[in-house]
Amino acid sequence: MEQKKIYLDDLEIPRQWYNILADLPAPMNPPLHPATGKPVGPDDLAAIFPMPLIEQEVTPERWVPIPDEVLEKYLLWRPSPLCRARNFEKVLNAPVKIYYKNEGVSPPGSHKPNTAVAQAYYNKISGTKRLCTETGAGQWGSALSMACNMFGLDCRVFMVKVSYEQKPYRRLMMQTWGSECIPSPSNITNAGRNVLAKNPDSPGSLGIAISEAIEEAVTHPGSKYSLGSVLNHVLLHQTVIGLEAQRQFEKIGVYPDVVIGCAGGGSNFAGISLPYVRDKIHGKQVRIVASEPTSCPTLTKGPFAYDFGDIARTTPLLAMFTLGHDFVPEAIHAGGLRYHGMAPIVSHLLKIGLIEARAFNQIETFDAGVKWARTEGFIPAPETNHAIAAVVEEAKKAREEGKEKVILFNFSGHGIIDLPAYDAFMSGRLEVHDLPQNEIDRALRAIEKHPKPR
Amino acid sequence: MEQKKIYLDDLEIPRQWYNILADLPAPMNPPLHPATGKPVGPDDLAAIFPMPLIEQEVTPERWVPIPDEVLEKYLLWRPSPLCRARNFEKVLNAPVKIYYKNEGVSPPGSHKPNTAVAQAYYNKISGTKRLCTETGAGQWGSALSMACNMFGLDCRVFMVKVSYEQKPYRRLMMQTWGSECIPSPSNITNAGRNVLAKNPDSPGSLGIAISEAIEEAVTHPGSKYSLGSVLNHVLLHQTVIGLEAQRQFEKIGVYPDVVIGCAGGGSNFAGISLPYVRDKIHGKQVRIVASEPTSCPTLTKGPFAYDFGDIARTTPLLAMFTLGHDFVPEAIHAGGLRYHGMAPIVSHLLKIGLIEARAFNQIETFDAGVKWARTEGFIPAPETNHAIAAVVEEAKKAREEGKEKVILFNFSGHGIIDLPAYDAFMSGRLEVHDLPQNEIDRALRAIEKHPKPR
Repeated sequence: MEQKKIYLDDLEIPRQWYNILADLPAPMNPPLHPATGKPVGPDDLAAIFPMPLIEQEVTPERWVPIPDEVLEKYLLWRPSPLCRARNFEKVLNAPVKIYYKNEGVSPPGSHKPNTAVAQAYYNKISGTKRLCTETGAGQWGSALSMACNMFGLDCRVFMVKVSYEQKPYRRLMMQTWGSECIPSPSNITNAGRNVLAKNPDSPGSLGIAISEAIEEAVTHPGSKYSLGSVLNHVLLHQTVIGLEAQRQFEKIGVYPDVVIGCAGGGSNFAGISLPYVRDKIHGKQVRIVASEPTSCPTLTKGPFAYDFGDIARTTPLLAMFTLGHDFVPEAIHAGGLRYHGMAPIVSHLLKIGLIEARAFNQIETFDAGVKWARTEGFIPAPETNHAIAAVVEEAKKAREEGKEKVILFNFSGHGIIDLPAYDAFMSGRLEVHDLPQNEIDRALRAIEKHPKPR
Repeated sequence: MEQKKIYLDDLEIPRQWYNILADLPAPMNPPLHPATGKPVGPDDLAAIFPMPLIEQEVTPERWVPIPDEVLEKYLLWRPSPLCRARNFEKVLNAPVKIYYKNEGVSPPGSHKPNTAVAQAYYNKISGTKRLCTETGAGQWGSALSMACNMFGLDCRVFMVKVSYEQKPYRRLMMQTWGSECIPSPSNITNAGRNVLAKNPDSPGSLGIAISEAIEEAVTHPGSKYSLGSVLNHVLLHQTVIGLEAQRQFEKIGVYPDVVIGCAGGGSNFAGISLPYVRDKIHGKQVRIVASEPTSCPTLTKGPFAYDFGDIARTTPLLAMFTLGHDFVPEAIHAGGLRYHGMAPIVSHLLKIGLIEARAFNQIETFDAGVKWARTEGFIPAPETNHAIAAVVEEAKKAREEGKEKVILFNFSGHGIIDLPAYDAFMSGRLEVHDLPQNEIDRALRAIEKHPKPR
């Protein structure tokens, strides 16, 4: 009998998050105020975020303490197990050892509560009464709903309409934790009404939903906005995943050759990989691969440019890989990967060559996901299937090269609420949506006049 | 920061199941052949079960080795964590420490794979090609689908129609693992057609679905039948839960005062409690409580009698608490608890006073479940909510008596697929179905002429 899971005891949980800003070999382009073209300061963000999170957004400290109140909630499901996928290895028939960090064990079933709990806590101690947010596939909205409920905050979630309709159970989950869930575009904000006026049948997008949530927050006293990915402080909170993985690997004396995560806004990918990027900066041999959909190929097809995080252009200009802030991707099932941009930290790391990016179409990813479910048991989220598709590709390369390889990937969430997507795949109803270059070119025209990053 | 979870390492997993037949202070009534009135022998069961399982049904051995092939699958999610519900304790405001065994961490989200994997394995080595079974809420059917897939067996599942309609995601889960799921009563068996002839709108019941699955198995060469609860060998496989819990408690030097499980057919209740019943037989002070729905009050209102396990009267006569084999309970959301009978072992233990039973209505149980979700995060299955309602009652008693108490209960599964039931509860659409005595009396008339147990 061989060991499959490496646990950490509760008291071995990391007490600090890791901040990669302290270790970057080249400085990042700062976020810019769209009106002045100057870097934004803390005051520019104070209308939507509480001060402790604004401080975390820019802190140069390498290690940020995790408050006891946050650790206490983490322990409901963390540390998450590091698991060896021995059965999946067998069907791949390649010289690889595959480990995964199972973030599906959290109550909402994904990595998202790692930052949701932290954000709810910092808002609570800053006097916030209600949080407003957007959600794609619903993973983020349900995580924030749970977190707000735990700290006694109200919560309103704008959910991308196509996912709201595809995934009714996510809405029910949010309501069970006591929050409100509204399909976006909605008619309760100017941003939503503007989109509906142009296209009453809009399937929505994360960009639109972000605009609605920000508008709702800034127009209601006591309300703040909360973002589930992209920003530095969100990625910071997620590093607990990679830090745990490093401790777990230390216990068995293993170090991965490749670290893989799927990338939508970038937070689960950053969560598992940033502690390894740090090692790489310090000379360690490790490849780090972000996996994204061909229908929304931000990292693999987009330019590195200054762009808005949302369609209504309410955010600062962020230096990132982007398909243009008014790009609305096809309604693929991996709703969490339908974002036009990418976390500035992740974008910066790709630009300076510390990470790689790969894109896979829906059918490739579900093929990998069903293989996984039929060997390892757990049914992965459609987003997670992108990471698994990249694992399959790495295993194939290892077989061709005859080279042994240890692969670590982030199992960012389970797919129990996404079963209709599996149904569509298995009955041949799933479509491939490779994005043609001319559509990308068209989308990018909207950002031609933005300032240029270094 | 206080510890919340006690893990066992993979290599600490129990290597043997516990068989309570070796320790019973009074012998059980044997199952009887309905035609002869004589105890059934192994040959009577050989048409539907493989020999290793028939042997486990009657073995007097106290410890039954768990095969390596089964352990290897268990390790995909087992040992399951033993967790302290500190946040739930706080809202109860009672002098109790509440621990739960989280069986929701398995791929299908419940305790059911503990026996599904074992049954699929023993069928595989006995030459079975296909397993047929029934499922109530879908937990069992999805667990057996996964297990059959892992061992290369085909699988056909008859799902109680009301659950099939209430829980489409369960069907999709079974299909993702490669099995067929058919709503019961169906028109592909005589048993199903007979029910439909009398009542075309029958919501189905576990009793009906069992009849269909047995008929399907015995009429197709290479097919066997598989039962997810009730029988001795099923309860045996589930004891891995309680055995793990005992090892986990040993690590922290704690012993529970009360052990609680919800009871439908009896397997998750037996799984957590039988190792504690053994302790009790040997003089340990521990109370053991089964919790069931008031709409199907087998243990609290039924007589102890010989009865069939299914509506078509194809099973042997079992000595058990029963509401009569043609009793069809209301379509409550805890589909896994809608069974007219109860495992003979559990029934015997209640009869000789080693365990207690309590009944709760749907609204009490969902009230407890929502409280749980809003403190501990995890959304419980409707079945599990019955155990939580019993925990709440025990905590209330402890407060009234001013007596400290350690409570252990089995968190038999998560409720992510049961979210529409939470929706019904929160919007006030849930109904209480207390069963009137005259309905029970009517149902019992069908079994008046059966042999009488001791």
